[in-house]
Amino acid sequence: MITVLKPNVTAEQRDHLIDWLEKQKVQVHISEGSEYTVLGLVGDTAHIDMDLLASLDIVQSVKRVSEPFKKCNRKFHPDDSVIEAGGVKIGGKNNFCVIAGPCSVETREQIIGVAQAVKDSGADILRGGAFKPRTSPYDFQGLHGEGLLLLSEAKKATGLPIITELMDMKDFDLFEDVDIIQVGARNMQNFEMLKALGRTDKTILLKRGLANNLKELLMSAEYIMAGGNNNVILCERGIRTFETHTRNTLDLSCVPVLHQLTHLPVIVDPSHATGHSDLVPSMALAAAACGADGLMVEVHNDPMHALCDGAQSLTPAQFDTLMKQIRKVLEAIKE
Amino acid sequence: MITVLKPNVTAEQRDHLIDWLEKQKVQVHISEGSEYTVLGLVGDTAHIDMDLLASLDIVQSVKRVSEPFKKCNRKFHPDDSVIEAGGVKIGGKNNFCVIAGPCSVETREQIIGVAQAVKDSGADILRGGAFKPRTSPYDFQGLHGEGLLLLSEAKKATGLPIITELMDMKDFDLFEDVDIIQVGARNMQNFEMLKALGRTDKTILLKRGLANNLKELLMSAEYIMAGGNNNVILCERGIRTFETHTRNTLDLSCVPVLHQLTHLPVIVDPSHATGHSDLVPSMALAAAACGADGLMVEVHNDPMHALCDGAQSLTPAQFDTLMKQIRKVLEAIKE
Amino acid sequence: MITVLKPNVTAEQRDHLIDWLEKQKVQVHISEGSEYTVLGLVGDTAHIDMDLLASLDIVQSVKRVSEPFKKCNRKFHPDDSVIEAGGVKIGGKNNFCVIAGPCSVETREQIIGVAQAVKDSGADILRGGAFKPRTSPYDFQGLHGEGLLLLSEAKKATGLPIITELMDMKDFDLFEDVDIIQVGARNMQNFEMLKALGRTDKTILLKRGLANNLKELLMSAEYIMAGGNNNVILCERGIRTFETHTRNTLDLSCVPVLHQLTHLPVIVDPSHATGHSDLVPSMALAAAACGADGLMVEVHNDPMHALCDGAQSLTPAQFDTLMKQIRKVLEAIKE
Amino acid sequence: MITVLKPNVTAEQRDHLIDWLEKQKVQVHISEGSEYTVLGLVGDTAHIDMDLLASLDIVQSVKRVSEPFKKCNRKFHPDDSVIEAGGVKIGGKNNFCVIAGPCSVETREQIIGVAQAVKDSGADILRGGAFKPRTSPYDFQGLHGEGLLLLSEAKKATGLPIITELMDMKDFDLFEDVDIIQVGARNMQNFEMLKALGRTDKTILLKRGLANNLKELLMSAEYIMAGGNNNVILCERGIRTFETHTRNTLDLSCVPVLHQLTHLPVIVDPSHATGHSDLVPSMALAAAACGADGLMVEVHNDPMHALCDGAQSLTPAQFDTLMKQIRKVLEAIKE
Repeated sequence: MITVLKPNVTAEQRDHLIDWLEKQKVQVHISEGSEYTVLGLVGDTAHIDMDLLASLDIVQSVKRVSEPFKKCNRKFHPDDSVIEAGGVKIGGKNNFCVIAGPCSVETREQIIGVAQAVKDSGADILRGGAFKPRTSPYDFQGLHGEGLLLLSEAKKATGLPIITELMDMKDFDLFEDVDIIQVGARNMQNFEMLKALGRTDKTILLKRGLANNLKELLMSAEYIMAGGNNNVILCERGIRTFETHTRNTLDLSCVPVLHQLTHLPVIVDPSHATGHSDLVPSMALAAAACGADGLMVEVHNDPMHALCDGAQSLTPAQFDTLMKQIRKVLEAIKE
Repeated sequence: MITVLKPNVTAEQRDHLIDWLEKQKVQVHISEGSEYTVLGLVGDTAHIDMDLLASLDIVQSVKRVSEPFKKCNRKFHPDDSVIEAGGVKIGGKNNFCVIAGPCSVETREQIIGVAQAVKDSGADILRGGAFKPRTSPYDFQGLHGEGLLLLSEAKKATGLPIITELMDMKDFDLFEDVDIIQVGARNMQNFEMLKALGRTDKTILLKRGLANNLKELLMSAEYIMAGGNNNVILCERGIRTFETHTRNTLDLSCVPVLHQLTHLPVIVDPSHATGHSDLVPSMALAAAACGADGLMVEVHNDPMHALCDGAQSLTPAQFDTLMKQIRKVLEAIKE
Repeated sequence: MITVLKPNVTAEQRDHLIDWLEKQKVQVHISEGSEYTVLGLVGDTAHIDMDLLASLDIVQSVKRVSEPFKKCNRKFHPDDSVIEAGGVKIGGKNNFCVIAGPCSVETREQIIGVAQAVKDSGADILRGGAFKPRTSPYDFQGLHGEGLLLLSEAKKATGLPIITELMDMKDFDLFEDVDIIQVGARNMQNFEMLKALGRTDKTILLKRGLANNLKELLMSAEYIMAGGNNNVILCERGIRTFETHTRNTLDLSCVPVLHQLTHLPVIVDPSHATGHSDLVPSMALAAAACGADGLMVEVHNDPMHALCDGAQSLTPAQFDTLMKQIRKVLEAIKE
Repeated sequence: MITVLKPNVTAEQRDHLIDWLEKQKVQVHISEGSEYTVLGLVGDTAHIDMDLLASLDIVQSVKRVSEPFKKCNRKFHPDDSVIEAGGVKIGGKNNFCVIAGPCSVETREQIIGVAQAVKDSGADILRGGAFKPRTSPYDFQGLHGEGLLLLSEAKKATGLPIITELMDMKDFDLFEDVDIIQVGARNMQNFEMLKALGRTDKTILLKRGLANNLKELLMSAEYIMAGGNNNVILCERGIRTFETHTRNTLDLSCVPVLHQLTHLPVIVDPSHATGHSDLVPSMALAAAACGADGLMVEVHNDPMHALCDGAQSLTPAQFDTLMKQIRKVLEAIKE
């Protein structure tokens, strides 16, 4: 950590600060310039409160050299984490993982039908929302416990592991049969929930917040891991920009960046990111081409009820075509 | 609600949709153009799932004409809401309310000392964090229950009502003596928490999320009010932009905009928005000048312990000077 | 174009507005609701000043149904535009075009060396900056006319067409030998320059501005085409977001979106978008996988002068490897 | 300037870099840590190409300690710049300057009428657009030379100095009678135009770009001043955010920040920022309260032609009321 002092700092003030820093078990290297004094802090600086330090009257600026995240940091864990959930491997070479299913669980027929269809096309895991985060209190909020039971039935019927979103720890006990718990984008910085999940041994898929950067995403992963739960999967699902033709902007460059910074797997959700089913295949192929560890794709099988045709959902037939193309792209980029 | 159909929609598809809409108790006015068909939906459209409608294959676009929020909407409640908390009135003409206090509760001496100081300068309510949302799991997370007890002591000692942040409903019972519960920016769309707070009768100060727009802020207020709790205060605390000289960008134009859209009071927090104490007075005066219903300002009294000098906190002396200037500005804009 | 009137509009005001609209040669369809009146405008609405209309006291909101861009609109020109520059085809099926070269032209040896290297690896067009837009007036601004002469020499030596940026029409005459003129991101809305280029017959590569949406990009293309010059190539080079690990955020979903909206070719520049050479190959492959019409990639050959090792430039060897991978991905996505 | 080297850098590489830096006339202070080496660069670092330095393979990160702008930097020019234009002083204590007038010059009657009205209410300078930057090539682009002549007539009739926007240096000669040349937000980084204006002695009002930060704004001012023209006024006119109730988001905290960073005057334009006349008074008062050096406000006098009622323009009567309130607020904040 580099700390630059303001020009007019007295020797007494400087020594007072250095004293305080050394009490926190970091070594301080002083570099006096003609205009500025620079303190180089070495040692375990992760517990230094950077905001507090930057707020001192005598400090001009503070800059971290080493990242504040440790458990998810690739530096201290060079090999890819391979996370198992319901017998499926996520992360690492040649474990490309496809999660597919409807936005919401609606009926037994729907969820089992989609589950069977996506399994036939090669999906590894079934998704389906039972608790739905909605901007409006007047919108459909999901089937809740009943939805979870239907998901379990689909799991039993097809053998696919299941992933679904948890919105409040009070419902945690209902998720016993769930293989992967999803933390939604709006809860990425619900720190109390992250801490509580860190004390469980469930596999967590952590979605990036709509306006959060990658450091913040990794700090939220760190919250879970600091509690002892290392089963964390990261998910890019689009960020908020000024573009309106897509619901959000899929930040695919986060895939190679996250692979540099962390050993955790990185999954891409092109359905929520774009919000339009006709954009999903292109972005799914791009995600595969740039090295993502998997995809989360919305699929519905509702030809009779066209009114519920989710704008961002593929039909099973479209999904089947996409899976074939993805396999070709994965083959093409194999080293 | 205006729904534009795609050019190639058949009469059968159109009638199918109209049928579905009318079943949801809205009237449909059809306007056929040479290129497009426009459906005007009239009636109680708040419960129509706009995303679902927009996602239909035959729909080009959907636009709300009336706002989807009802209980916080000024149209249905033209008079300013005046909310009472601990005997203090917030909202309405001539009730400018100043909330002041330290970022975190640290010690009995600190919190009682600051409470007395800000009361002497004219503050109406005491703030102080006991549960602190921090980006890093390794940063100081607050004194929790002990902090709440110290806040209560300061309340008893000075008579000032108190406001502090709640991060998880599991801690709610500890907040009995708290007059206003703060929902932090990162929890603005923690919908389960909003619902739970809606079932209480506590006064809630709802902070705008770092990348949320005003419609989303009002929908979150609506979540609380839909549960029956109308005691909601809105708080602007800066939004994320590309500017780095300030921690966030204070969006003061939200004050007159919110006053048009809603009857709820609007408080401005210049301390968190700017992150620098030397910018706080200017922005506090600007907030008063543009019609805010009050301010939330960080103040500390820690001359002996300069290391905890929060970059964004005013000293009691600076706060006292600011209070005098604010009174002059309030007088100047009085009609 | 849909115009929603405010609830309290009188019949006289409404008729006054309709009268004014009809004088501008658009037909008006009236749809009276119980709360709102909706006017559907049909005909040539491209010349209606939407901002002006929205600004009227009696108007609640205005929404375009048809896009305001015409000449670049795929609706009126369903086939892909294939643009030729220096014998190279850009756009259309199976014309994937690779533009490569150094950020700045530095010396004869450098530019001819890189040109030969990228040609050998399969590049189609040589890039190199002679006029450099720099945020600071004290930074290197390019070799100007001398740089253009060196580019011409490299063109003669290798047969590769050349592309370089124009920053001011006063320098236009120097660009006679240049095959494609680049309009930089910061000049995307330099409307006078766009108009002037519209009166030439040069091929223009128009880069998207750092905070511009796709509609604005297409309106800027429309500025050039409205003047009679249809030789326009669009280029995505990253947009400004809150992420800091990459210089900008490459918005790859713009590729399929632009292909829906326009017939113009879409090129992707992963070098400027990411700012880091180690991220360029992943994003180049992703761009190829999602259907881009080509790439613009920075390559330098400066092993002796490591200090000028542009963070975002590939070495010729890295570029050669990338070209082989790109060919495999292009093969994989072939229908 | 602080440069942090990567952990694995050899002594030879380090010395090579130091050698290169010292040749550029900066002194280098080395601070060796156990993990990182930090180089502190002292001296005239403004001409060091920070991007180039950061791009070197051996460099981890670079951070400027001193700002890269010099001529507009308050450190080297502690007193406020007071700029005179047409006899009016802008900047410095007690020179609050109000610029008012219509968005576009339309007719002789209009511009002279508005000029007389705003003068009577206390405006100091007349604004009016003759060259209009429009997103669409099909929108009204202004009266050009004819508009400038009408502005001159209004100047002669009222004695008010005039300000209007220049979009291309080819039109510069037409601006002889113009007292202040406005550089629009979309041209803030049209570096060639800034350089050309730097070689003139015209007073320039430089508008902040829609997605530019304050450092970039100051670097653009530096472009003008580096050419020898010190008559630069900065103007905040709103930045692009995710909020849609206002056209842009007025960043008022930039006023005290810019006053810290630079000696140049800072003017606020609430009309373009908000896009709604009913928000203009609140934001104008807020701008006055936080210390802006003046305002630029749109006013029209077009009661007969309600259709041209610009959404963001005040009527002369509204402007007159606003001027009275502003005077009260200015009085209230006087020290």
